[in-house]
Amino acid sequence: MVEELNLEDIFTKIDKGELKLHELDKFLGDSNRATEVRRVYLERRTGARLNNVGKTVIDFNTVVGKNIENTIGAAQVPIGIAGPLRVIGDYANGLYYIPLATTEGALVASVNRGAKIITEAGGARSKVINDGMTRAPVIAVPSVIDAVELVNWVNDHFNELKNIAESTSRHARLLNIQPFIIGNNVWLRFRFATGDAMGMNMVTIATDKAVKHILSKFPRAQLVALSGNMCVDKKANTVNFLLGRGKTVVSEAVIPRNTLEKWGVTAEDVAEVNNRKNLLGSALAHSYGFNAHFANIVTAIFIATGQDVAQVVESSMGITWMEPLDNGDLYVSVTLPSLEVGTVGGGTGLPTQREVLQMLGVYGSGNPPGSNALKFAEVMAAAVLAGEVNLVLALARDELARAHEMLGRAGKT
Amino acid sequence: MVEELNLEDIFTKIDKGELKLHELDKFLGDSNRATEVRRVYLERRTGARLNNVGKTVIDFNTVVGKNIENTIGAAQVPIGIAGPLRVIGDYANGLYYIPLATTEGALVASVNRGAKIITEAGGARSKVINDGMTRAPVIAVPSVIDAVELVNWVNDHFNELKNIAESTSRHARLLNIQPFIIGNNVWLRFRFATGDAMGMNMVTIATDKAVKHILSKFPRAQLVALSGNMCVDKKANTVNFLLGRGKTVVSEAVIPRNTLEKWGVTAEDVAEVNNRKNLLGSALAHSYGFNAHFANIVTAIFIATGQDVAQVVESSMGITWMEPLDNGDLYVSVTLPSLEVGTVGGGTGLPTQREVLQMLGVYGSGNPPGSNALKFAEVMAAAVLAGEVNLVLALARDELARAHEMLGRAGKT
Amino acid sequence: MVEELNLEDIFTKIDKGELKLHELDKFLGDSNRATEVRRVYLERRTGARLNNVGKTVIDFNTVVGKNIENTIGAAQVPIGIAGPLRVIGDYANGLYYIPLATTEGALVASVNRGAKIITEAGGARSKVINDGMTRAPVIAVPSVIDAVELVNWVNDHFNELKNIAESTSRHARLLNIQPFIIGNNVWLRFRFATGDAMGMNMVTIATDKAVKHILSKFPRAQLVALSGNMCVDKKANTVNFLLGRGKTVVSEAVIPRNTLEKWGVTAEDVAEVNNRKNLLGSALAHSYGFNAHFANIVTAIFIATGQDVAQVVESSMGITWMEPLDNGDLYVSVTLPSLEVGTVGGGTGLPTQREVLQMLGVYGSGNPPGSNALKFAEVMAAAVLAGEVNLVLALARDELARAHEMLGRAGKT
Amino acid sequence: MVEELNLEDIFTKIDKGELKLHELDKFLGDSNRATEVRRVYLERRTGARLNNVGKTVIDFNTVVGKNIENTIGAAQVPIGIAGPLRVIGDYANGLYYIPLATTEGALVASVNRGAKIITEAGGARSKVINDGMTRAPVIAVPSVIDAVELVNWVNDHFNELKNIAESTSRHARLLNIQPFIIGNNVWLRFRFATGDAMGMNMVTIATDKAVKHILSKFPRAQLVALSGNMCVDKKANTVNFLLGRGKTVVSEAVIPRNTLEKWGVTAEDVAEVNNRKNLLGSALAHSYGFNAHFANIVTAIFIATGQDVAQVVESSMGITWMEPLDNGDLYVSVTLPSLEVGTVGGGTGLPTQREVLQMLGVYGSGNPPGSNALKFAEVMAAAVLAGEVNLVLALARDELARAHEMLGRAGKT
Repeated sequence: MVEELNLEDIFTKIDKGELKLHELDKFLGDSNRATEVRRVYLERRTGARLNNVGKTVIDFNTVVGKNIENTIGAAQVPIGIAGPLRVIGDYANGLYYIPLATTEGALVASVNRGAKIITEAGGARSKVINDGMTRAPVIAVPSVIDAVELVNWVNDHFNELKNIAESTSRHARLLNIQPFIIGNNVWLRFRFATGDAMGMNMVTIATDKAVKHILSKFPRAQLVALSGNMCVDKKANTVNFLLGRGKTVVSEAVIPRNTLEKWGVTAEDVAEVNNRKNLLGSALAHSYGFNAHFANIVTAIFIATGQDVAQVVESSMGITWMEPLDNGDLYVSVTLPSLEVGTVGGGTGLPTQREVLQMLGVYGSGNPPGSNALKFAEVMAAAVLAGEVNLVLALARDELARAHEMLGRAGKT
Repeated sequence: MVEELNLEDIFTKIDKGELKLHELDKFLGDSNRATEVRRVYLERRTGARLNNVGKTVIDFNTVVGKNIENTIGAAQVPIGIAGPLRVIGDYANGLYYIPLATTEGALVASVNRGAKIITEAGGARSKVINDGMTRAPVIAVPSVIDAVELVNWVNDHFNELKNIAESTSRHARLLNIQPFIIGNNVWLRFRFATGDAMGMNMVTIATDKAVKHILSKFPRAQLVALSGNMCVDKKANTVNFLLGRGKTVVSEAVIPRNTLEKWGVTAEDVAEVNNRKNLLGSALAHSYGFNAHFANIVTAIFIATGQDVAQVVESSMGITWMEPLDNGDLYVSVTLPSLEVGTVGGGTGLPTQREVLQMLGVYGSGNPPGSNALKFAEVMAAAVLAGEVNLVLALARDELARAHEMLGRAGKT
Repeated sequence: MVEELNLEDIFTKIDKGELKLHELDKFLGDSNRATEVRRVYLERRTGARLNNVGKTVIDFNTVVGKNIENTIGAAQVPIGIAGPLRVIGDYANGLYYIPLATTEGALVASVNRGAKIITEAGGARSKVINDGMTRAPVIAVPSVIDAVELVNWVNDHFNELKNIAESTSRHARLLNIQPFIIGNNVWLRFRFATGDAMGMNMVTIATDKAVKHILSKFPRAQLVALSGNMCVDKKANTVNFLLGRGKTVVSEAVIPRNTLEKWGVTAEDVAEVNNRKNLLGSALAHSYGFNAHFANIVTAIFIATGQDVAQVVESSMGITWMEPLDNGDLYVSVTLPSLEVGTVGGGTGLPTQREVLQMLGVYGSGNPPGSNALKFAEVMAAAVLAGEVNLVLALARDELARAHEMLGRAGKT
Repeated sequence: MVEELNLEDIFTKIDKGELKLHELDKFLGDSNRATEVRRVYLERRTGARLNNVGKTVIDFNTVVGKNIENTIGAAQVPIGIAGPLRVIGDYANGLYYIPLATTEGALVASVNRGAKIITEAGGARSKVINDGMTRAPVIAVPSVIDAVELVNWVNDHFNELKNIAESTSRHARLLNIQPFIIGNNVWLRFRFATGDAMGMNMVTIATDKAVKHILSKFPRAQLVALSGNMCVDKKANTVNFLLGRGKTVVSEAVIPRNTLEKWGVTAEDVAEVNNRKNLLGSALAHSYGFNAHFANIVTAIFIATGQDVAQVVESSMGITWMEPLDNGDLYVSVTLPSLEVGTVGGGTGLPTQREVLQMLGVYGSGNPPGSNALKFAEVMAAAVLAGEVNLVLALARDELARAHEMLGRAGKT
């Protein structure tokens, strides 16, 4: 039937409301064709050309209904590489080229210089110190008495809930359920190991099943939202900062005195910039980012590798700590409490994203399971360290404005 | 000379350190060729194929040195559209298709349903209530006495500093300088109007010049960092939340009782979900996001339109407020205190990004200047409202898990 | 020897620096006499009369060196009582008169009205849902690798550390040690049951001994501070808010519709005030107090009962949550995550403080141990609820200014 | 009539509900007698002795209805003194004895040692950098459009509102009105100069009158609460931290190298403790107290001098910043953004409180008006500095536990 319809007939049906844009995939039986028809429809109705949006390597039949709906094409973001950066972790070990998808001039160059400093200093030592994806439903009960009963029941039936939750997935492993009570409201923060997946969908489904079981035991309890904003997904917050979500990871290095001398700075200078700007300034701003620019690096890698980019909000939280050592060297570290990454699922399988993960040697399921995501987190934290080291050193030399003037002319028009 | 070199010779020079990867652009005199050579080099050294990364509409000669360095290709992120969404603002007025570059299944569908509800309800009313881009250097002085002197001098010489700062750009207009003192540290938060540009580079350069002038008057004062983390750029924080950065924008609508009835919910139900999840849950999490998922929408539009995606961290801060009205309707609103957007500069001129902005009717400089960015902010806030309305209504029906199960299968493997 | 010295001789010695003011207790062998001498000395040197400061029931020989040093007399703060307030808890059960030491006009009257409303409604149901006093030393190590090793060792030797820590006190019982790592810094948050004592000194000593043992195993680890600001003592913070310190306690009640009608308000009205002021306003202020005035009640009871009043900072954190019920009644609750109280130790044994605790029926060690402190926390939370209920109801009637005008004339001069 | 009634008759009337406890003042015509009768009544009904509570220098006829209601006596808190402490400010200049009403052993000794160090170093330089008391009503309007209109009207009619607000008091001077909008809610943060009074009642009354005038112009606007939690009173928050409330005050000193050597520490040692504990630890705790124990000193002085002690919550917020100087000396500072103090009104006129203020030379109205409160703030900040200097130095020597063991035995039973 579709073949008999020409575009104009389809557009007429859409305008009449007989056919919805998002129904085109089913109507045409092909998401690539549906994508094209929607794009042309939008061109006609808005008067804009979407030529470049249409030129893409993505096969929409593989993404629609899984990663996205109502497609019209793709955004293309340039990728630059920084490195090689030496990373020494429990999983990563060697030199890595860091892929950064960004349009902010000077960013790749900044990470690149930091990578050089760190690699020459022997590399960044990275360590994941906590790992788990969370979902925290909020449940309303009549009274705090009910709230405490429900929490006690959950604590007493952890293994039962674990079995139920884990029945929904081959990979989800329930680690713990942390309860919080405010008046007659209960939050149950479920925390799961999720293998190489970032795991949010996995834990949403697993939590849903466990919660339904809990609710079956408490007829007066009512689920308000499967996400009660204590997970916490895509909002800066202290729960993840203190208790972690995704990977909690540290990367550190020692920058030798002679390297600092080449930059014309002492360890004390650099630590002072970090103390005044990243600690004191952020304290005053009541910020979740006691750092210079974690978000730049995290975002650029997230886009390049098919992560859930909105999670950069909490994945970029963290603290840069630097201190002069007695011998004139400088200890530098970054701590990211809530880095949410995966090497399977989400956007990791898309054409360009998959290639970039393969370039990093972390695409797909690791052996053992989970090891690819851990390796990826180690490398990413090292890249964040590189970004911090270079920027704080550059600030110590008051370079920021000059760097922008030379490399980031975009805004000055 | 380059023509005489084959790839192997170039790679040998790189491996020997005679030529750096980032020098290829200059060495080869063509960034597209340099991009290709780097990509092939990486393929050889890492064993990964980067075929899809190489297939891009981007002309690297137009972006290298401005938006990025050391390029190897591009990331491609699928774009879906939601809408049409009716937006009624001071600049936007009509139906808009919302472009969302994302790999999170169900997101476009969610915004689409929200857009339908809002449009049928008469549209989203959007208003920008504050506008200005900031940069806040931190300056060290010997004593609080010096700090107060410096601040007083700055207050007394505002017009002089304004002239100096504005001399660096045709578009930057200094609005005010807000001082903060901690012991012997001074932060001066410069706030500028920046026309249609997001403006961070512009205000960095302008602030740099003004600060240099201030320092010339205070020989004992020392610039520690041109960004003292009170700007605040790319960290969640309360300065922007309270005082704004970029656009502070509200979007609101009234959802009629009969629409709610079709969803099987009352205004009280929906407001209750919002109160328990978005207010109470976020209060407990000490979050900067008193909302359901602002970040999803902000991020997806930022990627599609060439914004500085790392700024999603503070651009997605904000509050969703809903209340039942006496007649059974539901008032809904979103307030985004720090939405940092531009329609010129940054990544807005890239091939796909430009087209998407053109589709929205906001590409480039507006007439009058600034009006395109304001219009864009109005539309974006309305899109965020659509995302909130649908998700909170869906939560009121406990749909979240089901939606993920049907549309977001990626994580369940 | 002292008897031979007259006041003038002593004062001369002090002025010459031969005798320090704080040495008078030992010098005179009597703290009451030393207190008097110091007071007269200050009168002479400052020209002020301290007559009333000197009139006190306190026997300084019982407090100097335990509660205070270098005494000159006492401050007298008037005590008013609110109530009776019916409290139904696991430990409290009956009618209580609430002692409030304050100089803020209208406060006692406000709590009194709230107590009446709640008592008529059947009383406040109070429940302590978490209990434990904490101390969190910060330890510096060379590297994150050492940090993880130390944390792992601590986890593996919990029982050993428990024995060591508990050897310092008959009452301290180590509940858990929660570790936090930032770069090369480790915080170990020790949490103890402390019986009826607030317990901060007890846990400081116990933690000190345990930490010394840990350090003996890690020669490269260095204690920076026994309190690393993650305890958290006397600063508003999210650690206590999320994880508790002292008692985490909820108090709740249901206010009947007909009571609300007498006030001329509906349940919806009152909940709306709470939502807009205590949730939305505090969200915007990024406050740790999502409430109307917890601090007023907590402070006044703390002063009256000999608590560590500086702890009001975190003891007054918390959330007021109110919701209309289907039958027109109003559910009201207060949640205090970090209420730090004791009925032995600290200032509880002083003459007036002891009497006030006795009046509440909670002085000294409870039977079983800990039950007096728990009962006290239940009553205090109920009193806080009374304060909230009255103020939010009064705000619903826009009474605040009028109440201040009539009762709080002090400021209007 | 009263004379004819014996106690038993009165008690019977109370028990029957014919007479309420708080009506005794009027019934007996004497608040001292009413206080006594209530106290005896409570003794009878609770079985507790309130002998010491009854022994007080307070004349209840001067405080009931102004500072408190329903009195039964007074709490007595011992006062110790620290100092003399040299303070150099714009108002304070000389040696001051610091009055501390506390029951926490070792506190006075700690401040005393800090005072000695600072005084020997030449004194603490204190400066008030901001001054103003605030009240922020929250107003509900139908739409953000109305919100913006109302805010614009307020901005355009500032002088009119100033006249109205100031008509309520001889001392209140309206400085500015800062607006905040969330959806259809408006907060107007009124900020006043209040002379020597802390001024909260004064500004409440003044704000009430101004707001009523605003509301008369906007019939669709509705006052929700005269305090919309953006004032912010008695909750830790960022509004006061960033914008100030009461006095924003800095105190600083330079501790000479040779003093540090006597303590066995270097400037670097001490700064390191401050960085790791007060900055890094508090960053991790997401605290409003980037300090060691501001609250201890602020609370003890507040109780001794008749301040509104519940305001210690935000008055004790602040940052301790220390840095080594090139010559081996140590720069130390404390910044208190929201110190709310007065020398008239509140509890300042009570018998002991008045004497203590007189001892400090700041009782009552200053000449010029406001100067006493400013001087008091300068001295208080210097005392806070003394407390920080001693504790951080002591921590550098790992003294905390030992100090508690020797001086603070109360908890160890």
